[in-house]
Amino acid sequence: MKLEDFIHNTGQWLKGTGAYANIVMSSRLRLARNLAKHPFPNKADKKELLAICETIKAAMDEIPQFKDSIFLKIQDLDNVDRQFLIERHLMSHEHAANPEGKALVVSKEEILSVMINEEDHMRIQVMESGFNLEEIWNVATTIDDELAKKLDFAYSMQWGYLTACPTNTGTAMRGSVMLHLPALVMTKQINKVLTAISKLNFASRGFYGEGTQASGNFYQISNQVSMGHSEQDVIQNINGLIRQVIEQEEQARQALLLQNKPMLEDKIFRSYGVLKNAHIISSQETVELLSMLRLGIDLQIIKDIDQKIINDLFIKIQPAHLQKLEGKKLNAADRDRKRASLIRQKIGGN
Amino acid sequence: MKLEDFIHNTGQWLKGTGAYANIVMSSRLRLARNLAKHPFPNKADKKELLAICETIKAAMDEIPQFKDSIFLKIQDLDNVDRQFLIERHLMSHEHAANPEGKALVVSKEEILSVMINEEDHMRIQVMESGFNLEEIWNVATTIDDELAKKLDFAYSMQWGYLTACPTNTGTAMRGSVMLHLPALVMTKQINKVLTAISKLNFASRGFYGEGTQASGNFYQISNQVSMGHSEQDVIQNINGLIRQVIEQEEQARQALLLQNKPMLEDKIFRSYGVLKNAHIISSQETVELLSMLRLGIDLQIIKDIDQKIINDLFIKIQPAHLQKLEGKKLNAADRDRKRASLIRQKIGGN
Repeated sequence: MKLEDFIHNTGQWLKGTGAYANIVMSSRLRLARNLAKHPFPNKADKKELLAICETIKAAMDEIPQFKDSIFLKIQDLDNVDRQFLIERHLMSHEHAANPEGKALVVSKEEILSVMINEEDHMRIQVMESGFNLEEIWNVATTIDDELAKKLDFAYSMQWGYLTACPTNTGTAMRGSVMLHLPALVMTKQINKVLTAISKLNFASRGFYGEGTQASGNFYQISNQVSMGHSEQDVIQNINGLIRQVIEQEEQARQALLLQNKPMLEDKIFRSYGVLKNAHIISSQETVELLSMLRLGIDLQIIKDIDQKIINDLFIKIQPAHLQKLEGKKLNAADRDRKRASLIRQKIGGN
Repeated sequence: MKLEDFIHNTGQWLKGTGAYANIVMSSRLRLARNLAKHPFPNKADKKELLAICETIKAAMDEIPQFKDSIFLKIQDLDNVDRQFLIERHLMSHEHAANPEGKALVVSKEEILSVMINEEDHMRIQVMESGFNLEEIWNVATTIDDELAKKLDFAYSMQWGYLTACPTNTGTAMRGSVMLHLPALVMTKQINKVLTAISKLNFASRGFYGEGTQASGNFYQISNQVSMGHSEQDVIQNINGLIRQVIEQEEQARQALLLQNKPMLEDKIFRSYGVLKNAHIISSQETVELLSMLRLGIDLQIIKDIDQKIINDLFIKIQPAHLQKLEGKKLNAADRDRKRASLIRQKIGGN
């Protein structure tokens, strides 16, 4: 497997399978782990970072789950490739910004990925389509156990897993669920929902990561607290909250259908029409229209297109993806044209 | 031929044939004629109006050009039918507003129509597709000659044809040409053109008649002066002006293609996409999008649809037409839905 193959693949998390795939795009768990007796990355020099990298790689090489993985040194990648991996939700901006001694490991289908020497020595991420944090937890904990057999993790009986930032200490686990909530937005209930989420100590972010605005009506909801509760408790808490949000979105969709189906059909079909026909389109407009199209598919108003294609487009319309697809650098105006042509090609437009 | 048949027909003037049909929708001549020794309609009582009507009808009945015509007493028509005839450019609002003693005669294909007892005893209109005022003049003058054999027209050697309003006295002829000028609008040259037209003593109105704003980038240009020049001179004058406007529009189209084809394609295809997919649409939005689609057909950017269908839609999307098509009264919201569904049906949408 090579980095170049990724562009033609769709990550498993985008395939529109799994529970509640009409509302839940994907579920994700992230574990932070550090090696004992090594400084945290921000305190380590280059030599130490490389040694940490080597130690972790050696351990992974013996673990079957990493058999088909790709190991990428961030320093070896150009800017487009780094941006490309960020766009695929496989690594953070921070990981790309200061690449020395950093690496990224990605499994086939992109279910499993590990950032080495980001804020912590290891950030293990498991991401799958649909609403299934427990299944993902099983995957993550198995890998964690395998790694723990070969690596000496920084762990305190009192505090749990030790991390570079104290907010992660404890389980060092963050679970997050990417929800598509167009009906809560259209019925203007979303702020009430987000306020409730925040009061319960959960965070909400946009589709395109930390610090991004919600776009395309996507909301990534994750736990903030990782200390004082077991992993299972944290997952149960997230699940309970997410189930409520799903129910509210479903009610809002039914209310829209009942009260104003023609308006909804109009909005959805127009979005489809513009996506099929635009020759120049910004990413902002694209995600808004794709969101309506996704809703249309979920509500069976649009029947001739697979949700997987739409999910995948949310990723592929980003700048680095467009440039990888085109095989060269594109300026903003070129990208707006390439984006439109890609969309027409994928959804059968004019 | 019955009034009910009109709804399923397309007037000849919308067929997109004739010279410069890419820019000139249609040409139209109107002659005002009054019977000698009868008061003008605004001075006539009901009995006199009916007598005038009968006299004119009797004359027409003997003229071959009126053989397949329909004779409609305005008072017998309901509001929707009156509005319907106004929307088809066959009669004026004024003719509908005060219907007593008024009639309308319309030939097959709607090339020839006569308002009886509007402002003048007869307003003879000949309207055809494309840029061909001279051909139309031949049609109009033949009919005028036939009518003159049977009717005694009010005519003064000094003033020419006498009319209710002195601005029409003389030739009592108005020639007008309906132009589609999207490129002059997009390149912001239209106001300069309209100012020049006005200085040359020509009037400019919108697609939907006197007092209407230009919509869908249509401009109806007509002569203001009807005294002191022969009919042929007036027609030559209009033709000369229209040829210049056509040339400017053509240059503006070429400039747009040269300088910003992607923007133009984007605008045109998006318009097509929205028209194919909207489920609710206002008449204002419709004419703007149809205008772009018409331009796209003219520039061969859109190749899978006949211009005649688009021309016809400009007429059919109006309120009375929608209600005739539906066979019942529709409120504004119903019409916005019916309009969208008619458009999808005509241009093959979703």
